[in-house]
Amino acid sequence: MGLAVMRDQVSEQVNAISGRIVDYRRDFHRFAESGWTEFRTASLVARRLETLGFLVDAGRGVIRDEDRMGLPPSEALEIHWQRAFEQGGDPEFLTAIRGGFTGVVATLQHGEGPVVGLRFDIDAVDIIESEASSHRPVQDGFASSNPGVMHACGHDGHTAVGLGVAEVLAAFQPEMHGTVKLIFQPAEEGVRGAKAMVGAGVVDDVDYLLGHHLYSGWNLREIDPGRSNYLATSKFDAIFTGAPAHAGGRPHEGKNALLAAATAVLNLHAIPRHKEGATRINVGRLDAGTGRNVICRKAHLVLETRGATTELDEYMVESSTRVLEAAAAMYGCSLEIKAMGGAQSGSSDASLASRVENIVLEMGGFSIRAPDKGGGSEDFTYMMQRVQERGGLATNIGIGANLGGWGHHTADFDFDEAALSDAIRLLCVVTLDLLGERR
Amino acid sequence: MGLAVMRDQVSEQVNAISGRIVDYRRDFHRFAESGWTEFRTASLVARRLETLGFLVDAGRGVIRDEDRMGLPPSEALEIHWQRAFEQGGDPEFLTAIRGGFTGVVATLQHGEGPVVGLRFDIDAVDIIESEASSHRPVQDGFASSNPGVMHACGHDGHTAVGLGVAEVLAAFQPEMHGTVKLIFQPAEEGVRGAKAMVGAGVVDDVDYLLGHHLYSGWNLREIDPGRSNYLATSKFDAIFTGAPAHAGGRPHEGKNALLAAATAVLNLHAIPRHKEGATRINVGRLDAGTGRNVICRKAHLVLETRGATTELDEYMVESSTRVLEAAAAMYGCSLEIKAMGGAQSGSSDASLASRVENIVLEMGGFSIRAPDKGGGSEDFTYMMQRVQERGGLATNIGIGANLGGWGHHTADFDFDEAALSDAIRLLCVVTLDLLGERR
Amino acid sequence: MGLAVMRDQVSEQVNAISGRIVDYRRDFHRFAESGWTEFRTASLVARRLETLGFLVDAGRGVIRDEDRMGLPPSEALEIHWQRAFEQGGDPEFLTAIRGGFTGVVATLQHGEGPVVGLRFDIDAVDIIESEASSHRPVQDGFASSNPGVMHACGHDGHTAVGLGVAEVLAAFQPEMHGTVKLIFQPAEEGVRGAKAMVGAGVVDDVDYLLGHHLYSGWNLREIDPGRSNYLATSKFDAIFTGAPAHAGGRPHEGKNALLAAATAVLNLHAIPRHKEGATRINVGRLDAGTGRNVICRKAHLVLETRGATTELDEYMVESSTRVLEAAAAMYGCSLEIKAMGGAQSGSSDASLASRVENIVLEMGGFSIRAPDKGGGSEDFTYMMQRVQERGGLATNIGIGANLGGWGHHTADFDFDEAALSDAIRLLCVVTLDLLGERR
Amino acid sequence: MGLAVMRDQVSEQVNAISGRIVDYRRDFHRFAESGWTEFRTASLVARRLETLGFLVDAGRGVIRDEDRMGLPPSEALEIHWQRAFEQGGDPEFLTAIRGGFTGVVATLQHGEGPVVGLRFDIDAVDIIESEASSHRPVQDGFASSNPGVMHACGHDGHTAVGLGVAEVLAAFQPEMHGTVKLIFQPAEEGVRGAKAMVGAGVVDDVDYLLGHHLYSGWNLREIDPGRSNYLATSKFDAIFTGAPAHAGGRPHEGKNALLAAATAVLNLHAIPRHKEGATRINVGRLDAGTGRNVICRKAHLVLETRGATTELDEYMVESSTRVLEAAAAMYGCSLEIKAMGGAQSGSSDASLASRVENIVLEMGGFSIRAPDKGGGSEDFTYMMQRVQERGGLATNIGIGANLGGWGHHTADFDFDEAALSDAIRLLCVVTLDLLGERR
Repeated sequence: MGLAVMRDQVSEQVNAISGRIVDYRRDFHRFAESGWTEFRTASLVARRLETLGFLVDAGRGVIRDEDRMGLPPSEALEIHWQRAFEQGGDPEFLTAIRGGFTGVVATLQHGEGPVVGLRFDIDAVDIIESEASSHRPVQDGFASSNPGVMHACGHDGHTAVGLGVAEVLAAFQPEMHGTVKLIFQPAEEGVRGAKAMVGAGVVDDVDYLLGHHLYSGWNLREIDPGRSNYLATSKFDAIFTGAPAHAGGRPHEGKNALLAAATAVLNLHAIPRHKEGATRINVGRLDAGTGRNVICRKAHLVLETRGATTELDEYMVESSTRVLEAAAAMYGCSLEIKAMGGAQSGSSDASLASRVENIVLEMGGFSIRAPDKGGGSEDFTYMMQRVQERGGLATNIGIGANLGGWGHHTADFDFDEAALSDAIRLLCVVTLDLLGERR
Repeated sequence: MGLAVMRDQVSEQVNAISGRIVDYRRDFHRFAESGWTEFRTASLVARRLETLGFLVDAGRGVIRDEDRMGLPPSEALEIHWQRAFEQGGDPEFLTAIRGGFTGVVATLQHGEGPVVGLRFDIDAVDIIESEASSHRPVQDGFASSNPGVMHACGHDGHTAVGLGVAEVLAAFQPEMHGTVKLIFQPAEEGVRGAKAMVGAGVVDDVDYLLGHHLYSGWNLREIDPGRSNYLATSKFDAIFTGAPAHAGGRPHEGKNALLAAATAVLNLHAIPRHKEGATRINVGRLDAGTGRNVICRKAHLVLETRGATTELDEYMVESSTRVLEAAAAMYGCSLEIKAMGGAQSGSSDASLASRVENIVLEMGGFSIRAPDKGGGSEDFTYMMQRVQERGGLATNIGIGANLGGWGHHTADFDFDEAALSDAIRLLCVVTLDLLGERR
Repeated sequence: MGLAVMRDQVSEQVNAISGRIVDYRRDFHRFAESGWTEFRTASLVARRLETLGFLVDAGRGVIRDEDRMGLPPSEALEIHWQRAFEQGGDPEFLTAIRGGFTGVVATLQHGEGPVVGLRFDIDAVDIIESEASSHRPVQDGFASSNPGVMHACGHDGHTAVGLGVAEVLAAFQPEMHGTVKLIFQPAEEGVRGAKAMVGAGVVDDVDYLLGHHLYSGWNLREIDPGRSNYLATSKFDAIFTGAPAHAGGRPHEGKNALLAAATAVLNLHAIPRHKEGATRINVGRLDAGTGRNVICRKAHLVLETRGATTELDEYMVESSTRVLEAAAAMYGCSLEIKAMGGAQSGSSDASLASRVENIVLEMGGFSIRAPDKGGGSEDFTYMMQRVQERGGLATNIGIGANLGGWGHHTADFDFDEAALSDAIRLLCVVTLDLLGERR
Repeated sequence: MGLAVMRDQVSEQVNAISGRIVDYRRDFHRFAESGWTEFRTASLVARRLETLGFLVDAGRGVIRDEDRMGLPPSEALEIHWQRAFEQGGDPEFLTAIRGGFTGVVATLQHGEGPVVGLRFDIDAVDIIESEASSHRPVQDGFASSNPGVMHACGHDGHTAVGLGVAEVLAAFQPEMHGTVKLIFQPAEEGVRGAKAMVGAGVVDDVDYLLGHHLYSGWNLREIDPGRSNYLATSKFDAIFTGAPAHAGGRPHEGKNALLAAATAVLNLHAIPRHKEGATRINVGRLDAGTGRNVICRKAHLVLETRGATTELDEYMVESSTRVLEAAAAMYGCSLEIKAMGGAQSGSSDASLASRVENIVLEMGGFSIRAPDKGGGSEDFTYMMQRVQERGGLATNIGIGANLGGWGHHTADFDFDEAALSDAIRLLCVVTLDLLGERR
């Protein structure tokens, strides 16, 4: 079957299911779940994939416990797990993923051939969704019913795309030579989840790895076939604990955690630039102290570093650690540093991106977007790097989904649902092309 | 009537009512209300005083609107006013004090003579009360039923003492030559309320002003007849507002409110010591930022200054303002400074304290406690200073109420209720002595 | 005349004069003069060029007064001018360049053709020269006799190379089609001098501009034909002036310039990284205060910023200015900012560099050095940019001059004088090639 | 002999020698020597005292080597020792005090009785003396001939007073019952010398200890009979040593000693106030770095702490040490802390001061000056404390010497030489009074 034929057949299939895909997306949006608590989402995804004939693994087999970063407290995990039950999660798979093992991997094989992996991230963001009547999820009744959690980065769409891809590829199974491996990843926000899936070995056998991301700020059908220049990043919290004292009566008896934190903040931002390339640091949040007249006992910093390479990020982490430790010592405070997330630097493989670009251009109706300067991070880099290390190829595809004006991670975020079909079509055609190699 | 006779008669009266006083105290403890929301407390106090025959004024007549500091938002005032209704506040007086005018002044006159004012502070603290079974309010069922608010500084006791004093003095009215003026003040915590009562003129006619405070850390019946060396203090919040930006992608576009705040914190604490005497500064709390990867847009500092004199506190406030403004300018942030409370420096009049000391010693059963170094602040200083300026005398009496070990403003705070009777006795005897001058 | 013939003739000429060139270099080394005080050097250069038949302009015609940066005080200029007299400067030209107008431009024309400019920087560095017997200038008796000033960056060699180039090209005048323009520039150290020569228009008619620099750390005959990625830079001083006070007796009366400076230093280094590329900042020196027990009145910061582009450097300068102004305001200090030097970003033209590279390879005996990452600055960029703006081509050539181990700007700096002949040969062959175009 | 008679006889003696005393003062002024280099001064003082019949000890017997603080390098000591030779020092005593043992103690005994010690400090200050013609030392030809050293605090006068006291008391020897002990102390500036004399035991046998200081800012004949509230103080230097690097090319390789120093400066000034009383800190000087484009390798802080008590000063020193060590660690720098001087807190004995006051009032012509708030430090406190510990009494007497307008430690400092006779009279009358006790 030539590309043109296959492309047309895929399009036909996608058209047939596009309404249901939108329904999926809206359902996930309504029951938004944040990182490591995607119990309802993951269990329903797993159920659907099993129904479609995939071989499904969910839970500890695909999530390595000790590689999970930024895990919520176990009470929170349990509360959200209960909520997933009440909101219609699949009981069988809920049992498998209890305790925050919310990853799902599903495979479909036919004949000999390469393994093509596709990754879909499924978590929402801790944001209070807009209640404005102009906000389409409000208008159409699918705004988040879970307070303080919202799909404000499009992962509801990514998850729905994953189910669409599964359905279409299942129909093409007889045409395949090789294996399709669908990877539904939790906790991409805060770059916390990919490492644990890599740790469980889920991409160790992958020859071609495809990721994708919808971008609300790009025009519909604008495609970047190989997003690159991801900065390596480390996310961590630093907690200074000193000793309180009455600020009027016994000021000299305090060990002032806020002064330690303020010193740290200034000196962290003063870490020298590095000759070898871009570095970043940000203390995004500081919560310190209780009463006005009490020397501050506890200060909690929420920070991150980045680097154009993993080495540059390590330079920033080491420098930060030295600054934090010295700031604690300066005020007689103890210091706890907690790893909360991380991603490596990385780029899509140019050869695979170029192959995707050619397919995109042949498919017609799409345009290629010029690559941007980077500055962002993605934990998909963990997966890319593992595949690349083992001789495979990986690319992350950007897909335009413009709805005009609202940025990712804002309360009014939304996207054009037409992009869902675009994404399914594109991913299926590329996958089938890769699996049709033998002929 | 000689002191000895009067003293014995007072003691008899106090013994007769001591059970009811403890009930009052426990009732106020159970329905603890924090500063400017003491609707139930104030309305019940006013009702009781009217019942006892006092001439009562509550609300705008005794609270000057524009001198109220650290007032909660009007929605909060309204919610708590509704709660007071539900919790049995007096409907008539609730109407008078609606909107946070929770002061009460009551007078009782007989014959010609001086005006003796007594001040009682009535507000609770924003603290979550201990639920430990060893905590007596839990054991005896009078722990706070208002979540997050607790009488952790003994003002429930002060208020009950005020009602006891009222009842005893009412019985002695025929013996009086002059006027008793009972002043029930809101919002002493955070030193926010006294200024508004002084602004309304409530102590303008007072010749002798008596305050008192129970101290859980002192032995029972240990008395300081004239607490002194109160530091002047200013309580204020500073809010820096900058501009957010993505910390990885557009770091140079942010206006980093957290860096402004950190610079301010360090330099505030570095304000030079002053030759003329003790100064203090404390940033007790800093809440800054939202997400880890967002340049911080908003930083909220909760701070206070103090000085051995009002001039020294002003020096600290001026220096702080300069530091805060410059820190904002350094990061292109805007700055808002909100006054949240304040007290003046001040000391009890030695002559009045000495008179109290003599009465205490004659009464027997009490010991005099050596004065301490100070370091604390009290907005009773506003009242003292007004009285002193107009030629009157004022003193603030410390009264031991030890229950062993728990500090003021902790979740386990409690005191020995025997101190309530001590306080009533002492204040009544001193008052009657002052009002017996003519003879 | 073909390249091979010309190359051999040039080599012959260079061999004939190489001993004298070394003498020139040692003479300039012995009478080292720092930026804007190169009175002896410039006057002798001008005299020699006139003797060789060049048309010479020195002083105000080639140095624009108001564009001179980092000029020493006029007393210092005068003292060094007197010293130049005593050390054998040329009286006629000394008169022309009095007051710190120590630039020289010399032209030689023949026939029609392009203008080829060559730039030579002539100033020394403020460093105390090593007195170690292992230091060759000490061994061979040409160490600096001007205390505290040393040719520690090879400009003595550059100047000697310039005289050598002049002598060789004068011999080839009949072969030329066009104009040779030799530009001897003062005050390259601290990037202070080039702007004033550009301001005087000396490169406005230049079609090809050649610079060169000897590198002691590179192997002999290692050539970089087109040095690039120069960072734009701004050099400035910041002086905080506060008010002194006795640190024990009147600490509150001081306006502490050292605290202002310390705050500035930290916050300058915390200026955010910029998305568009590399930035740098350094406070290299801080001199503050007098006595231990005196609140510091004056603090002097010596600093610089850099940027991968001139815009990025401007971003750093603007941010620095805001920080410095706010730090002054924070401590009630006045602030003076003095511009001390600057250079633009810039790169050699690839086409001209490539032409140089080809000539180098044809000449034989040289190797091409891989370009490095940059990070340095050069005020030759002012000249390059002007030439490039007007449609000309420019390149700066790096020339190996290894003597093993000593870095530029150290007291033991030296270089292998064989590099002088290499440089003369190379520059002459390239110049003659450019001026032989017509044929 | 009654006080009146004795007083008149003393006055007569003083009048007889007053011209010579002025000559002494001017000679010491002209050959000003700073701390630990008072070789000429000390040797001439010793010679004179021996001539007057005192038993003299100079050098190691009165200066304990290991207690000397802030000693100059041994080369400097030797250079200044040579200078003292050339400037007419006494050869015999110069030998005794070589190496910076520049203290002199002289005793005169008669009969049984108490030991009265008098202390005179002899060192000058590192200040360049004014060359203004209005400056009297210039007018009258006795300005300092030792460049950069000036008697700008009146110790030239104190030394001359010591010689005058010696001469007068020698004449009264037959009237004495007890011992006079004259103590000439080096290195009072920077509070470096007294500890070493106390360490050598020179005040261990003293029953009454008298110090004095001339004050140029007080009216002539204004006397403070017992200066008090000296702050304890510690003087020390802190030197951070990091690693240099090129600020453009290798910024991440530096260990920035200036950033360490700036962090230290801010946090030192932010050391919390202490409940128990006044504290002070000042970094009076910071010298850091070399070139603008070099990451700073070395930063030298010159600082001091003070406290109302020795314990409070120790609190400041401990806190400072912690801050300095942490700041060094923060930037990977090494840290050296050098003790440079120190004094204890202390006050004159009220009973002895009162006795002096009575004598002053009886003598007539003097007025008593109200005590000031303190804030200054004096290493005479070491001697006072030792005497007080052993049961003796000590007082330091302030003596007015107004010349209008110029402060201590300024280039124009001077005083009215009439104060010299006042001081001699007063000290002799008090001493004789103390030694006349037996009668």
